[in-house]
Amino acid sequence: MPSYTAPARDTRFIVNEMLDIASLGNLPGFENASADIVDSVIGEGGRFCQEVLAPLNRSGDEEGCTRHPDGSVTTPGGFKDAYRQFKEAGWGTLAQPEEFGGQGMPHVLAFALEEFISSANHAFGMYPGLAGGAVAALLAKGSDEQKATYLPKMIAGDWLGTMNLTEPQCGTDLGLITTRAEPQADGSFAITGTKIFISAGEHDLTENIIHLVLAKLPGAPDSSKGISLFVVPKVLVNADGSLGERNAVTCGSIEEKMGIHGNSTCLLNYDGAKGWLVGEENKGLAAMFIMMNAARLGVGIQGLSQAEVAYQNAVAYAKDRRQGRALTGPADPAAKADPILVHPDVRRMLMEGKAFTEGMRALCLWGALQVDLSHRAATEQERADADALIGLMTPVIKGYGTDRGFQVAVDMQQVFGGHGYIREWGMEQFVRDARIAQIYEGTNGIQAMDLCGRKLAQNGGAAIQAFFRLVGEECAAAKGDEVLAPQAEKLEKALGEQQAATMWFMQNAMANPNHLGAGAHHYMTLMGVVTLGWMWLRMARVARAALAAGAGDKAFYEAKLVTARFYAERFLPDAGALRRKLEAGSEAMMALDADGFATAV
Amino acid sequence: MPSYTAPARDTRFIVNEMLDIASLGNLPGFENASADIVDSVIGEGGRFCQEVLAPLNRSGDEEGCTRHPDGSVTTPGGFKDAYRQFKEAGWGTLAQPEEFGGQGMPHVLAFALEEFISSANHAFGMYPGLAGGAVAALLAKGSDEQKATYLPKMIAGDWLGTMNLTEPQCGTDLGLITTRAEPQADGSFAITGTKIFISAGEHDLTENIIHLVLAKLPGAPDSSKGISLFVVPKVLVNADGSLGERNAVTCGSIEEKMGIHGNSTCLLNYDGAKGWLVGEENKGLAAMFIMMNAARLGVGIQGLSQAEVAYQNAVAYAKDRRQGRALTGPADPAAKADPILVHPDVRRMLMEGKAFTEGMRALCLWGALQVDLSHRAATEQERADADALIGLMTPVIKGYGTDRGFQVAVDMQQVFGGHGYIREWGMEQFVRDARIAQIYEGTNGIQAMDLCGRKLAQNGGAAIQAFFRLVGEECAAAKGDEVLAPQAEKLEKALGEQQAATMWFMQNAMANPNHLGAGAHHYMTLMGVVTLGWMWLRMARVARAALAAGAGDKAFYEAKLVTARFYAERFLPDAGALRRKLEAGSEAMMALDADGFATAV
Repeated sequence: MPSYTAPARDTRFIVNEMLDIASLGNLPGFENASADIVDSVIGEGGRFCQEVLAPLNRSGDEEGCTRHPDGSVTTPGGFKDAYRQFKEAGWGTLAQPEEFGGQGMPHVLAFALEEFISSANHAFGMYPGLAGGAVAALLAKGSDEQKATYLPKMIAGDWLGTMNLTEPQCGTDLGLITTRAEPQADGSFAITGTKIFISAGEHDLTENIIHLVLAKLPGAPDSSKGISLFVVPKVLVNADGSLGERNAVTCGSIEEKMGIHGNSTCLLNYDGAKGWLVGEENKGLAAMFIMMNAARLGVGIQGLSQAEVAYQNAVAYAKDRRQGRALTGPADPAAKADPILVHPDVRRMLMEGKAFTEGMRALCLWGALQVDLSHRAATEQERADADALIGLMTPVIKGYGTDRGFQVAVDMQQVFGGHGYIREWGMEQFVRDARIAQIYEGTNGIQAMDLCGRKLAQNGGAAIQAFFRLVGEECAAAKGDEVLAPQAEKLEKALGEQQAATMWFMQNAMANPNHLGAGAHHYMTLMGVVTLGWMWLRMARVARAALAAGAGDKAFYEAKLVTARFYAERFLPDAGALRRKLEAGSEAMMALDADGFATAV
Repeated sequence: MPSYTAPARDTRFIVNEMLDIASLGNLPGFENASADIVDSVIGEGGRFCQEVLAPLNRSGDEEGCTRHPDGSVTTPGGFKDAYRQFKEAGWGTLAQPEEFGGQGMPHVLAFALEEFISSANHAFGMYPGLAGGAVAALLAKGSDEQKATYLPKMIAGDWLGTMNLTEPQCGTDLGLITTRAEPQADGSFAITGTKIFISAGEHDLTENIIHLVLAKLPGAPDSSKGISLFVVPKVLVNADGSLGERNAVTCGSIEEKMGIHGNSTCLLNYDGAKGWLVGEENKGLAAMFIMMNAARLGVGIQGLSQAEVAYQNAVAYAKDRRQGRALTGPADPAAKADPILVHPDVRRMLMEGKAFTEGMRALCLWGALQVDLSHRAATEQERADADALIGLMTPVIKGYGTDRGFQVAVDMQQVFGGHGYIREWGMEQFVRDARIAQIYEGTNGIQAMDLCGRKLAQNGGAAIQAFFRLVGEECAAAKGDEVLAPQAEKLEKALGEQQAATMWFMQNAMANPNHLGAGAHHYMTLMGVVTLGWMWLRMARVARAALAAGAGDKAFYEAKLVTARFYAERFLPDAGALRRKLEAGSEAMMALDADGFATAV
């Protein structure tokens, strides 16, 4: 059986030392996040995930969700009780606005907890996770009445929520949706259509589920400009807030998937279901992107989460399992074999896992801080800058974070040899669960296009220039430190590759947009490599300062320095290769006609 | 439902045009491989795989194998009948020696067929595949009596076979096995112990199963030097060749795995089972490596196979599925959306799939030819050279081929978006099935150590020097062609990176063997990248010549040239990055003590 322990020490390091959120105590929300509170959220939240959620991960995978003939869905054994405990402890309310019953704390803390939840039980975490996206959309675009009706219950966790975008004929291209919304005399709409791949679409955790649904009004433009957003409760809510009639939305089936079996992935049939317009007519795509951006950061965290839990188990196995001898001679001559941790190739995989997970954790929590600053920083300029930075970084966190997170989960499974392929060890579940994160909330190819086709050029490239400046400043600062100078130089070189790639896009993509599309995924990966390098240099600087100040826990800071060096040596070299691939352009990629891909005839 | 069509055209191109096996007609065995025979094996063999094996792939995965209370195992519905057809058609006999009922044809043809079998149904292919390893060991090390007793039946396919190495406490480190072999008065041995992960260990396809089992004789050295190999039939064979009593080997359980559910992975209990020594006492490891080397090439082919079938289905989906518009403007203005094949990032994945599968196919069939030449070439020197080359390349074919093959299967699943994660589309099965190939028959970390720790240095580095020479000659030959010159230059550069990495090993690994271990996996990948680049340059030269000669099927050869260029542009740049990672050495990798890997405290 795999196990999980929340990486509390590392999270505290990032929150308290690297991001130093205590220094932001003058900002709204941060005054709630005293050192004690931070400590308690990380400690207690971690314990909850370890003790309540992690033990249900394997059993949830084995049992899966069950749809009954009446369309109701039962979650795996234990999920309902775990959710009750989750709700009662208020874990879903951390960063939600106090106005609707939330605790108004920084997103930094909510993201930290989200990592723990998803490591402990990815499928479970999706139930409150999806509801979070629905809450974000209602907060941003809902009417006062809609907010009053739904948000207190949703934030309290009494009701959960979903996002309904995909239909059989359309995933990425939402202009193709056919679900219709017919205006009714009472101001509501009758929603009719079929939605697929609806995570947490039906279940037994809460008495109501608030669906946010994309549909088309009569006569709306036949494109993505004709999409509107509707709120459609599973059970209608009476004027006094009590629950009324069952709405005409039913679960037609649940999907058989590769993983995340503990989450019910539903086909939902809307058969004239009563819904209400959220925001303006035909502006549903903008509202949807509010959900999506929040959700994409959450998915990036899932990439980290599965890598982290897989890493922990691989470390434990590598210490325990004995095969062969160290290349430099027996490490434990008294035993018949050494622990496999002595073997360089096992180390390679573990160190790559460590370098990714700790770097990615720093990036996710840095990203959470930008979300906070985009709402709460003192000046409008600071808020706008933070918003632009997190907008730029969202596709990198989602795309690179889940690509590399999946790779780490695969490598950690590899550490187990044959046992990694056997279900009871649980490693193969981490791989199957991690796989979805590269696909949903916009495939990673879509993330790459969001980054390169939209975010790079926004506001004349202000955000990417700000990013280059930040990384450049960190390199400059670190170069004065003899230990960090070699790493700073390597990062500067990698940054130079990214800058050159950016320039290449500017010079070539106008003439042929396929050049942009052909290089977008490489660019996203390149930016991910540089970004984690930046995080590692920041962490290394903090570790150097702590050691110089004579901090206790010396081994922790020294491990940071070793891993920072490892990252610079083993991840950053990819930057040059990625640039060269990108600069190859799209000619060979686009040359074949459809028949050219056949090998059979 | 996924589909499969054998890539007959491409196989013919490699066998007839690139390898030109007709020119080898003077060698024993090759005289049987007339153009007609080659054509018929590829055509008929492909059709058999498409029509009989492929339709059982998904159902085999869903149904899996069943162990009954008496220890018997039933394979999935249809497998037994498919196996009967396989046997009756003689598909298992192609390259087996005529002396024991085989057809004595080149391994090139057997490997070609093996790819088709494994693409159509990986789990099914393992039943005859494992038997092939057992046959190879008996051919090499069995006594005349053992050969006469077992080989005709095994080669005819009446009996299947297995390889029994792994025990609960040992996988890679076979010195730790505890299975005992007690000498009996009649010259046989009583085998007692538990073996795990025995593929095809028990099933209902044949009336007998011939197990090859590693065990220790009383008083044998307590290390890998004390291992002997035994042949242990499931049902004892009477002197007249008829079947006698059931032997004391039973299936204790079958493993629940991530994939290859159609193959029974057994725990086998040997309870004083009757066995006979194969080869010399305490020389079992050498005999085992005969099985392993054959098996490793087969596993490399599996890496190709799953990539190929996943690629085919992804191409079909990309032509059919419509989402969004081409970046350069609507490709099909009459429709509401373009096929996703127009999107560069979908192309990127498909072209990478095409570049890998066709390059890897060329490598596998080139490798098969080396196996043939190692037995059948005219002079001893030629045989020794071919043997050294295939010895060098076996870990690359197995390790790089399955790493990259898995990555391609994952990418092809990605082409399907959310549908790729749903079981009914079958793409996630290809990923789950492909995953095992990186693990079994020696994990890819072991392959890397076999390459760098053993093969590189053998005979003073003669094999790697021969490889460098071959690649260098191909570059030199291609440089005279203006179309191929840029690719030849890129390959020459990548070759230079590999040569520098090799030199770095020579200069550093003696002082610290961890430097070798730390770079071994990077080196294997680097050599894989260079090797497929070499194959692509060879294929491109053949294609150029065919076009110059006015060959029909122009589109096929032009696609080869496009893909060769794509390979040079998009795969070869990794060579430099891999070299730089390798040259970072082992310091940072080996610096942490065991506690340094913890993140929780």
